[in-house]
Amino acid sequence: MNGSFDGEGGVAGAHRDTAQVDMSMAPPRASGPVGVPGARLVTPSPTAASRPVPGPRDVVDGPIPLPTTESVPLDLICTVERHLDEILAAVPQPHPIELAVLDAQGLLCAEEVESRRALPAFDQAALDGYAARADDVEAATPQVPVELAVVGETVAGAGAEASIGPGLAVKVAAGAMLPTGADVVVPAVWTDQGTVRVAVQSGPPPGGYVRRTGEDVAPGDVAVQVGTPIGPAQISLLAAVGRERVLVRPRPRIAVLSAGTELVDIGTAPAPGQVVDVNSYALAAAARDAGAEAYRSGILPTDPRRLGEVLESQLLRSDLVLIAGTFATDGFDPVQEALATLGDMRFRQVTMHPGPAQGFGRLGRDEIPVICIPGEPVAALVAFEVFVRPAIRLMLGKRQLFRRTVQAVAGQELVSPLGYRQYLHGTVMRHPDGGYVVEPVGDGTEALLARMARANCLIVVDEDVTQVAAGGLVTVMPLLLGG
Amino acid sequence: MNGSFDGEGGVAGAHRDTAQVDMSMAPPRASGPVGVPGARLVTPSPTAASRPVPGPRDVVDGPIPLPTTESVPLDLICTVERHLDEILAAVPQPHPIELAVLDAQGLLCAEEVESRRALPAFDQAALDGYAARADDVEAATPQVPVELAVVGETVAGAGAEASIGPGLAVKVAAGAMLPTGADVVVPAVWTDQGTVRVAVQSGPPPGGYVRRTGEDVAPGDVAVQVGTPIGPAQISLLAAVGRERVLVRPRPRIAVLSAGTELVDIGTAPAPGQVVDVNSYALAAAARDAGAEAYRSGILPTDPRRLGEVLESQLLRSDLVLIAGTFATDGFDPVQEALATLGDMRFRQVTMHPGPAQGFGRLGRDEIPVICIPGEPVAALVAFEVFVRPAIRLMLGKRQLFRRTVQAVAGQELVSPLGYRQYLHGTVMRHPDGGYVVEPVGDGTEALLARMARANCLIVVDEDVTQVAAGGLVTVMPLLLGG
Repeated sequence: MNGSFDGEGGVAGAHRDTAQVDMSMAPPRASGPVGVPGARLVTPSPTAASRPVPGPRDVVDGPIPLPTTESVPLDLICTVERHLDEILAAVPQPHPIELAVLDAQGLLCAEEVESRRALPAFDQAALDGYAARADDVEAATPQVPVELAVVGETVAGAGAEASIGPGLAVKVAAGAMLPTGADVVVPAVWTDQGTVRVAVQSGPPPGGYVRRTGEDVAPGDVAVQVGTPIGPAQISLLAAVGRERVLVRPRPRIAVLSAGTELVDIGTAPAPGQVVDVNSYALAAAARDAGAEAYRSGILPTDPRRLGEVLESQLLRSDLVLIAGTFATDGFDPVQEALATLGDMRFRQVTMHPGPAQGFGRLGRDEIPVICIPGEPVAALVAFEVFVRPAIRLMLGKRQLFRRTVQAVAGQELVSPLGYRQYLHGTVMRHPDGGYVVEPVGDGTEALLARMARANCLIVVDEDVTQVAAGGLVTVMPLLLGG
Repeated sequence: MNGSFDGEGGVAGAHRDTAQVDMSMAPPRASGPVGVPGARLVTPSPTAASRPVPGPRDVVDGPIPLPTTESVPLDLICTVERHLDEILAAVPQPHPIELAVLDAQGLLCAEEVESRRALPAFDQAALDGYAARADDVEAATPQVPVELAVVGETVAGAGAEASIGPGLAVKVAAGAMLPTGADVVVPAVWTDQGTVRVAVQSGPPPGGYVRRTGEDVAPGDVAVQVGTPIGPAQISLLAAVGRERVLVRPRPRIAVLSAGTELVDIGTAPAPGQVVDVNSYALAAAARDAGAEAYRSGILPTDPRRLGEVLESQLLRSDLVLIAGTFATDGFDPVQEALATLGDMRFRQVTMHPGPAQGFGRLGRDEIPVICIPGEPVAALVAFEVFVRPAIRLMLGKRQLFRRTVQAVAGQELVSPLGYRQYLHGTVMRHPDGGYVVEPVGDGTEALLARMARANCLIVVDEDVTQVAAGGLVTVMPLLLGG
């Protein structure tokens, strides 16, 4: 029921819709000094489309060298949309599990929770006052109060049922059981708050300020529906109907691994040429942030037998395996070899920047999905956002798989390779005059961790756009922590 | 650096600013059939202010009976703002602790993390290609390529430094160490990708596609600053500079207790007059959602000696103690008595609805803050939002203590007691024509858990407003899960 306020936005604002350009099997040609059919420039003016198309940019000298899409074998090239669709079609829906209500926090309910109880379980006072008969107090006014004899007092939790007749009242605390015969609670503030006799200055209509048995939830009512996110209010309701445990969509278990001969663990001082494994840390954090139960399994061994053993054991205990690493497109790669023995693993050039080298397969006896993403840490976190986070949210049962996007004014010119969807880290801010302004944290060509850490969004530039002028509108995906 | 996108909104949109009416010690009079000075009606028209003020509502017959603010002793009455200010001024700032980087996720960095390393640690190829000398390839064009002899190949992780002279190139993978003598990497896609000799069609300028030592982070640079929220990108950077642990503002430890003679634990079938303790569950979930480490300590015992022992032990192990319960305003209350022996605990009527009965004090040897909130579960979650969540965020070191608010069009008339700030659960939706529309989930007078569970926001009606017409603007606080 969080509607458009769950931080993920409705379909209209979700990322998916902002980049629907289907490159399919025939991306536009983009090589050499010839014309660039299909290239689009985004300029500040809404009449830009009618302006003459500027001369072709020399792609060879562009700031982001990528293979021209025609130079890659067709069966290896793939759009972001197609690769994502394949992943989303293949991720399993983990079986619902029963958890203690507090452990269910943040997950989606996987059962129709029917209440076996009425809420409230008995007629009770909605506030502090006097239980009375509506007929007796109907005519009361501040000028001509009605006097009742106070024959007792009931506090919350007391079970002994009193009973009243005409002209009588029982002093009641909020939540106290209503005595038999009473059909109204006169708020204390409408009386002189007497203890032996009480002067009532106004009478509520019959049933006034009485919480009736079953008014909140009747036995058999569905208290929490399938698909409802379980937050504090749902936990309150589940506890009230006496549920200690509830069936939920579990957090998917995700093993996070790094591959690369250059990697050493964080505690080791890297030798010349070596670098610290940052991906298994950053991606485990990202997976946890997306709602998964992430296991950081560290750097994959290079010995083929041990490599195979590690991969197989991860497949046995995970709902999804995520591997960040450098996958050689030519020459021998021991990780690719090991994965190939476990099932059909497809490595591809996805038309995106950074990080076109992506892989996906379903491996092992249980056909566990395995997602391979680039080893360069900035590209790895981009690939996580684009492919892995939606997969985790799908496994969690969320309806909104994609982050909300907004249109923002580019604070400076952006360039983007033709035929590739570009993701740039940036900072987006509200503009004083309304709307948003975004600046890239670098020039978009360099993978720098310190810059990425200053970003609060990804700027998404479509495949057919090569240039966004300063002042032009661009799609921005705010990276809300926890969102 | 998440700026206006951390889900909490900037000062301009934060809740604090939307209800600055300072009721101070003299709330407007609101009793009886006399005129209602200061009452404000919100109507759809922007010219409403110039319309004649309608006749006074009869407060005695209003749907929400509350004591007229003048009927409560002045030293017991308090505005929302004053009670909140007192709590925020008194909550401690827990000492920073050192955590493993993955456990630091979601917390604020409490140190200036200076890097002892350069990132990158060595000059390296930014992409797959050929390490060469800029001078050699400067003149290359697709029409007149430059030929170089390929004298070796370096993969990522290899430490052996090769060296090249004029006319030579080394094939390099992205991340591979640059051979001595090379000052440029020619992208593979700008060449014929030869293995013995390579034809270069375009030469980058000197330094092109080389990631220089220290370009990302130089030794002595501050990688992560004090106050930065630690997310996946910061974890990536911390790992890269070799930090296994980092000093952070810890999650405050919060004990959550329920008080009330009517309460039984969730596993017990309630006898007539008894109700299940839902607050310790719902509030522990809410506290955890707000970022605290919450301990659900359950129902307080009624025996005075055991009650005292439980309270003292909670004070020893907590940064804040939260007690939800019915605190008698007249007559003996064992919890109030026990708290009074531990320090200065102030119980008050806060001018808010639901749940004016609120308490705060600093108790025990360490003067641990203790917040008492109403026992009625809807009022308890409202009080949590208003008083406890900002206190938790302050202890976490967050700059934005309050939820973002938006102005929304009321889908139906809302009434509110004069002199009290009213919080109504509602559902807010984006309007197709822009802006937001909000509907209360009930009529605002009844505390119903099932209705609360359908809400996605709180509607906030200021103290001086008694009525918001359908179509009028009202302040709305979206309750984002995890926000």
